[in-house]
Amino acid sequence: MYEAPIDDYKFVIDHVIGLDQLMANTGHNDISIDLVEAVLSEAGKLAADVIAPLNHSGDQAGATRHDDSSVTTPNGFANAYAALAEGGWTSMEAREEFGGQNLPMVVTTAVNEFWQAANMAFALCHLLTQGQIYALQKSASPEHQKLFIPPMVEGRWTGTMNLTEPQAGTDLAGIKTKAVRNGDHYLISGQKIYITYGEHDMAENIVHLVLARTEDAPAGIKGISVFIVPKFIPNKDGSLGPANDVRCLSIEKKLGIKASPTAVMQYGENGGAVGYLVGAENQGLDIMFGMMNHARLAVGLQGLSISDRAYQKARAYSFDRVQGTPLEKDSGAPIVHHPDVLRSLTIMKAEIEAMRALMILGAAGMDLAHGCDADDPRNTRANLLIPIIKGWMTERALDVTSQAVQIHGGMGFIEETGAAQYFRDARILPIYEGTTAIQANDLVFRKTLRDGGAAVGELFDEIDAEMQQLAAHTDETVAANAGHVARAVQAARDATAHILAAANEPRRPAVNGVNYLMLLGRLCGGWMMARASYKAAQLQSDASCDPSFMQAKLAIARVFMTHHLPQVQALADVIMTGDDAVLAMDPDWL
Amino acid sequence: MYEAPIDDYKFVIDHVIGLDQLMANTGHNDISIDLVEAVLSEAGKLAADVIAPLNHSGDQAGATRHDDSSVTTPNGFANAYAALAEGGWTSMEAREEFGGQNLPMVVTTAVNEFWQAANMAFALCHLLTQGQIYALQKSASPEHQKLFIPPMVEGRWTGTMNLTEPQAGTDLAGIKTKAVRNGDHYLISGQKIYITYGEHDMAENIVHLVLARTEDAPAGIKGISVFIVPKFIPNKDGSLGPANDVRCLSIEKKLGIKASPTAVMQYGENGGAVGYLVGAENQGLDIMFGMMNHARLAVGLQGLSISDRAYQKARAYSFDRVQGTPLEKDSGAPIVHHPDVLRSLTIMKAEIEAMRALMILGAAGMDLAHGCDADDPRNTRANLLIPIIKGWMTERALDVTSQAVQIHGGMGFIEETGAAQYFRDARILPIYEGTTAIQANDLVFRKTLRDGGAAVGELFDEIDAEMQQLAAHTDETVAANAGHVARAVQAARDATAHILAAANEPRRPAVNGVNYLMLLGRLCGGWMMARASYKAAQLQSDASCDPSFMQAKLAIARVFMTHHLPQVQALADVIMTGDDAVLAMDPDWL
Repeated sequence: MYEAPIDDYKFVIDHVIGLDQLMANTGHNDISIDLVEAVLSEAGKLAADVIAPLNHSGDQAGATRHDDSSVTTPNGFANAYAALAEGGWTSMEAREEFGGQNLPMVVTTAVNEFWQAANMAFALCHLLTQGQIYALQKSASPEHQKLFIPPMVEGRWTGTMNLTEPQAGTDLAGIKTKAVRNGDHYLISGQKIYITYGEHDMAENIVHLVLARTEDAPAGIKGISVFIVPKFIPNKDGSLGPANDVRCLSIEKKLGIKASPTAVMQYGENGGAVGYLVGAENQGLDIMFGMMNHARLAVGLQGLSISDRAYQKARAYSFDRVQGTPLEKDSGAPIVHHPDVLRSLTIMKAEIEAMRALMILGAAGMDLAHGCDADDPRNTRANLLIPIIKGWMTERALDVTSQAVQIHGGMGFIEETGAAQYFRDARILPIYEGTTAIQANDLVFRKTLRDGGAAVGELFDEIDAEMQQLAAHTDETVAANAGHVARAVQAARDATAHILAAANEPRRPAVNGVNYLMLLGRLCGGWMMARASYKAAQLQSDASCDPSFMQAKLAIARVFMTHHLPQVQALADVIMTGDDAVLAMDPDWL
Repeated sequence: MYEAPIDDYKFVIDHVIGLDQLMANTGHNDISIDLVEAVLSEAGKLAADVIAPLNHSGDQAGATRHDDSSVTTPNGFANAYAALAEGGWTSMEAREEFGGQNLPMVVTTAVNEFWQAANMAFALCHLLTQGQIYALQKSASPEHQKLFIPPMVEGRWTGTMNLTEPQAGTDLAGIKTKAVRNGDHYLISGQKIYITYGEHDMAENIVHLVLARTEDAPAGIKGISVFIVPKFIPNKDGSLGPANDVRCLSIEKKLGIKASPTAVMQYGENGGAVGYLVGAENQGLDIMFGMMNHARLAVGLQGLSISDRAYQKARAYSFDRVQGTPLEKDSGAPIVHHPDVLRSLTIMKAEIEAMRALMILGAAGMDLAHGCDADDPRNTRANLLIPIIKGWMTERALDVTSQAVQIHGGMGFIEETGAAQYFRDARILPIYEGTTAIQANDLVFRKTLRDGGAAVGELFDEIDAEMQQLAAHTDETVAANAGHVARAVQAARDATAHILAAANEPRRPAVNGVNYLMLLGRLCGGWMMARASYKAAQLQSDASCDPSFMQAKLAIARVFMTHHLPQVQALADVIMTGDDAVLAMDPDWL
């Protein structure tokens, strides 16, 4: 059972972020909240009825590689992908010239949450394909765009990202895959690992985007180029031509997302795979960076998605399971009435709603930054939020999915129940698309130290100004929430000053990075929940709104302030007292 | 690869806890630190050479149930259990009259860490058997003791605990299994679930300890009795007689500890299984409570054990893996030189060493309380520490094993690497032998509210007094650590006062329980690390000690104070501001 959180999205998009103003500012005047609701409602049905039921069975069956190097996805996956295409959902994000709908990210992000929550292993294929569409839209030649993008938009072909090699994971400088020019194309040879949906049976063709090194390329990351390497080489009219020189050598046995094949791909066993250069030679890293914000936001969204799915399962169990007699209740009352179960579910919900609001803030930020100059403040803000969203939401998903197992007691440890799957699936999220440490480095070095703390300072000023307004509100909860967040901003400023003061000793900010990221995640979550409580207080007397939704939002915001926000001060304390302590450790003492 | 932490145990047992004084106080004058070291060294070898190598292969193979209801454990397990028996390790804990060695818990706990770290799924069998030996030593008739205990001490037979039924998990009041008197024995019929090692091939016989209800028993927990139900009914001379009416119906497909069979056991399909009453009728719960402290300490120890095993794996990987160029290092330096990897390993190590010292404090507390009256202060202290040790160490094991996966990057998500297994295995620990919420209820209601906070107050006073001494120490780290812990004690006192003030509204302490437990866990960990740093400072100039071990201990203690201890204040803030916020939530708003 999965139910798409449509009411919360309506509230967040319309009230917390403000749809009309955003659409006016981004040239999407045709998009109203009614349209958004209609879109979300249709997507929610497909997610709940078609995609979610394949999640547990897909995990149990897993993907299977056969001796002929082909890979079969679990029963129902290929039909579900066809349904996604048929409903037009694979074309949401792309530009209209390629058959896309060019919807703003505040809308596509909400829809993507539903796919990811319904079935993360399944939805990964769309996520990767979407990433490639972004990259090609931005950097490929018009001819290649026309040949490769429309079939992916239609959902007939899918895309992959081929970055990692055994010796080159986080650090792409070590990439060895070779590209040799051969007329209008290149011949690619080498091995790539961890290729999600590198081979499968859900599409007619698979378009691999492959990082490789041309013959005279400079060493290190400056010598990396990007190539389109299709599984079947298309003819000029888009029809499928011969099979390319690429093969799935094996798929991994993984902790989670077992339904998604994670392939080892071998290129050029027979002379070289045909590849088409994207952009110019040696521009590979720039091209990958150009799509990184989208990809990182998408993975942060997976953290939110799987948290909500796990929460929904735990909630359902807690209303169903009878065990013991809760304090002040009659025997036969379900376990949700045990105070600790109520606490656990409530803090899960508080964190999920904070994540969702921040996610849509980030998506709105991307919509606003779209087409802006690199140094435009809208770009600066979006760039600042990305590592926070990716790092915080994926790390916290580990805890939320773990709590969901705990609520099930012994049943949570039995795979049949399904709660354990979310716990396993979530574990990849802080690893892929840049580990949490990589997000933290990005946040501390590129986004904080490089501008001397200007961008984070502006964020703090904005939160402070908003909290000052809210502190004067007549609703006690709203005013109290504003006070909590204002104190957290001060702690964040102290921690930031400490990090900036150590700019000349880079190992200190590097030690503090992950804690700083988690601090800012909690702070931004608190900011969003304070604003949500303000909007909820305003809307309580609005006849068009459900008053119990607004009451619940006020109660949940207060829980965020009192249960999650205290971590901001704790993390500031760790940052301000703990970096020297770590750096005093000799690795030989470990 | 597993290496038993013998040096740390020598330090903790000899210096942090003080072996000689403890042995003098508990009548074990024959046990010296040299003897302890010899014992640990032998156990460490067996754990590393024989038991640890079966951990990953055991997980991959899992336990298998056959059509004839028999269960096969993974290759090597039966031989390893025989090796455990042959080395005399199955007889460590039992009394001498049953062939045991009657070693104090400070020693057996250390040895048991090695088994659990080497292979938790394997070592569970000994843990359960040991629990049954305790129960029978305390409550069975001399005749049954003589018949059933020695073969378990010798390692020829093993034991199980049969509590849970589908409708009766945490709440044993709902137990339905029946016992009908039939001459000198009873006939047992009913179904039990989650029976660890309920059926296997590592022993000649399996002795089930089964909770059941006699015909006229009162309803609820007051009507539960305990029965010995052997797989094969022994003759009076101890030789094996006929098979009993008990069968393994199925084994569970679990998230972790896959090598250990978790059985559904059916009793009495053919008229009733022969069972022997332990103690008197309707004393079942008292008997189970009598062994609960040992069992909970043993599971807390599993949390420490798997944390250390996961840490060791991550440490080894971080010295081996080269990726990127760490700041201020040459290219080719392994990832341990990346500041964030160093941070992660260091905070893992700090928590593990704090757990180990607290675990041995708890074991020493049990040794001191052994044979004392129920209201003796030594008993009170041991009873206070038990839920803290069980709850804190098992919850924190989730985080430590998760960090160990993270350090492996993408490799951590591939099952072949082995890091994921610890993450999966650890997930059962906060669930079985009483969930964390159950430990928290025990801590808050039985151990804190019932005596008006006297026992925790005495603990705080003792820590304060010790910290006052340490604060005057000439070593700056020692003095600073004492200051950190003294401030944490004040936060703990504030949180305790808040909980005591709400004694008449039990739902509030119930909401605060888990946070209070985690607060006291961190505080006690800080206490132990402050003491450890003091001892290390003293021993730095001692020619018989390794100065770099002492330096490392000082550095690690400082990391605990600056990275883990700030959680005490944060949790106190949550407790003091957050209980009302949770209780304001209507479950219908979830």
